[in-house]
Amino acid sequence: MVESTVGKVIECKAAIAWDAKQPLEVATVSVDPPQAGEVRIRIMATALCHTDSYTLDGHDPEGLFPCILGHEAAGIVESVGEGVTSLAVGDSVIPCYQANCGSCIFCKHPKSNLCTAVRQYTGKGVMKADGKTRFHCRGRDIYHFMGTSTFSEYTVVHEVSVAKINPEAPLEKVCLLGCGVATGWGAVYNTAEVQPGQSVAVFGLGSVGLAVIEAAQRAGATEIVAIDTNPDKFKLAKEWGATKCINPKDHDKPIQQVLIESSPDGWGYDATFECIGHVEVMKAALEAAHRGWGQSVVIGVAAAGQELHTRPFQLVTGRQWKGTAFGGYKSREQVPGLVELYLKGETKLDKYVTHAFDFDKINEAFDLLHSGKSLRTVLTF
Amino acid sequence: MVESTVGKVIECKAAIAWDAKQPLEVATVSVDPPQAGEVRIRIMATALCHTDSYTLDGHDPEGLFPCILGHEAAGIVESVGEGVTSLAVGDSVIPCYQANCGSCIFCKHPKSNLCTAVRQYTGKGVMKADGKTRFHCRGRDIYHFMGTSTFSEYTVVHEVSVAKINPEAPLEKVCLLGCGVATGWGAVYNTAEVQPGQSVAVFGLGSVGLAVIEAAQRAGATEIVAIDTNPDKFKLAKEWGATKCINPKDHDKPIQQVLIESSPDGWGYDATFECIGHVEVMKAALEAAHRGWGQSVVIGVAAAGQELHTRPFQLVTGRQWKGTAFGGYKSREQVPGLVELYLKGETKLDKYVTHAFDFDKINEAFDLLHSGKSLRTVLTF
Repeated sequence: MVESTVGKVIECKAAIAWDAKQPLEVATVSVDPPQAGEVRIRIMATALCHTDSYTLDGHDPEGLFPCILGHEAAGIVESVGEGVTSLAVGDSVIPCYQANCGSCIFCKHPKSNLCTAVRQYTGKGVMKADGKTRFHCRGRDIYHFMGTSTFSEYTVVHEVSVAKINPEAPLEKVCLLGCGVATGWGAVYNTAEVQPGQSVAVFGLGSVGLAVIEAAQRAGATEIVAIDTNPDKFKLAKEWGATKCINPKDHDKPIQQVLIESSPDGWGYDATFECIGHVEVMKAALEAAHRGWGQSVVIGVAAAGQELHTRPFQLVTGRQWKGTAFGGYKSREQVPGLVELYLKGETKLDKYVTHAFDFDKINEAFDLLHSGKSLRTVLTF
Repeated sequence: MVESTVGKVIECKAAIAWDAKQPLEVATVSVDPPQAGEVRIRIMATALCHTDSYTLDGHDPEGLFPCILGHEAAGIVESVGEGVTSLAVGDSVIPCYQANCGSCIFCKHPKSNLCTAVRQYTGKGVMKADGKTRFHCRGRDIYHFMGTSTFSEYTVVHEVSVAKINPEAPLEKVCLLGCGVATGWGAVYNTAEVQPGQSVAVFGLGSVGLAVIEAAQRAGATEIVAIDTNPDKFKLAKEWGATKCINPKDHDKPIQQVLIESSPDGWGYDATFECIGHVEVMKAALEAAHRGWGQSVVIGVAAAGQELHTRPFQLVTGRQWKGTAFGGYKSREQVPGLVELYLKGETKLDKYVTHAFDFDKINEAFDLLHSGKSLRTVLTF
């Protein structure tokens, strides 16, 4: 008989980021039981995302160390804290870095998913109930990251940040719906609301860019141009639905000019998406949007302190500049529906998982991420 | 019996801008008869707008001289060129700097008013039929301006740029619907689509800013904050509908921070409007927009070469950056409706006319414009 862990500290494996620019250490951590409004989750699969790398590499001025990174994962509820009613032991779940309490002004607004219920605590790497962390290692408190910290066999997450999903979903696949793929899909459906027959331009062909292409095709876009400086990525882009691929390095003109000239009616694209995090690319994407009504959506995270910029004339002549966080999806309400979409076989989700590693190889997985040769690497314990 | 001028060159009074940074010369010009697709209009009233001043002061790198400025006016059709069917001699009209042909992709799109029918000719100060000007003075061709050139007793305008209005409309009032007031109203109704109960912030309290306040109140906005560094303008702003006035100079903090803190729910304003043309104010306006869904509309024309800028985070957290030209109104289709709104007594249009001068005093009217002590000065012949 397996002894219950409920109410007890769990000792388990986790990858600890002791400081910026250091490799992670796979070590044993102590994970406290969940307090009021919290859930302890056994992580079954976690992927790596560039935002983990961004913080680990020291680019996030608000990054806190030591911490446990990771925010794109799926698991099973091990135990629940006092007052938790929406989740029960054994539920399949996806921890969500964007909370969804259902009652704040952002949750109640039809157009926003930026719930603020636990924002001030997750921003400080702690839990709301007592302002402390649930992770400890060799006598030190270890900060939470993005309210998820999925690079641990067990993690503690606020109830408002946990989406309960269909128990039949394969966790090593649907974990991707916790961040990148959902973000790309949502940017198309929720932020730009791409319509049948529209033209779309996508800058950056990582997982998010491919997810934009996938959703744009499903939304009925008839022209989908994919832009990247690495032509090795064009094969996948076409497989995903791109109708044309352009390498800016092949042209002397600015890429926005190349795009406008090659757009279906010569006036630019109905919707453009920046999936890199480079402010000059954001400018190009905005300026490649269609005169009169084109929308440009910022998805990538830029380096600290950098600003996007363009001449006001670009907006006065009808272009709109928008951004998206988690694709505009209200996490707890909508992630379960994305899982159902996957289970119906209507997505390319399986194809984003290019590598599957044992959790112990997490530093190798980061090297692979940096090489640009993987889409998503999924780690299992 | 008055001899007909149809088909003949008309000699009349006009204000000629011989070069940038020079006073206008009120002189006699020759106005050619309208050619195919053109209309010759007797201007009965013309107002001055900052865009005239912007060009006269040499700030527009594409400004052409000598030219006849003016673009906010109303008049009576004197004669029509070959093939003109939508207008007849004697019609009351408003010349519109933004054309509306009804058949280009921009006219056919429900969300755009940026008709391109005559754009390449008006940008060069000439007419489409033969690529030449219809104005001459002392042996020199005089360029058209914005396709309207209303600082002339008679002007020639493309048919696609002339809105036919109710003959009962007082032309010395509805002339304002040719630019500034319509632009402010349309920014509220068409661009931001302000809804009842929303909060609005307006930067710059000239005629356009006041028109935004007027429309916002009519649209049902319950909180309307007016921002200007000249507190002399607050009295009118309140009379127009502002619920609060703020002078940025009274605060040590950036104005966007002041606004967010004083907004109804502490998260910013549902819609913000920049009616000045200053890129730093555009940044403040965007950043004062509500997290999650706030829209910021650029209306002002910035100095040549300047760029608006902000951190991408501002967009990723849900703010949208837009712009508007002529308030998004499809000119020929919608200006007549604005005139009807005025005739029903549902607008404050009369109150924008603070000064009425004889046309000969046009340079004094420009001085008044620069002083900031007028809203609109209307000139009559």
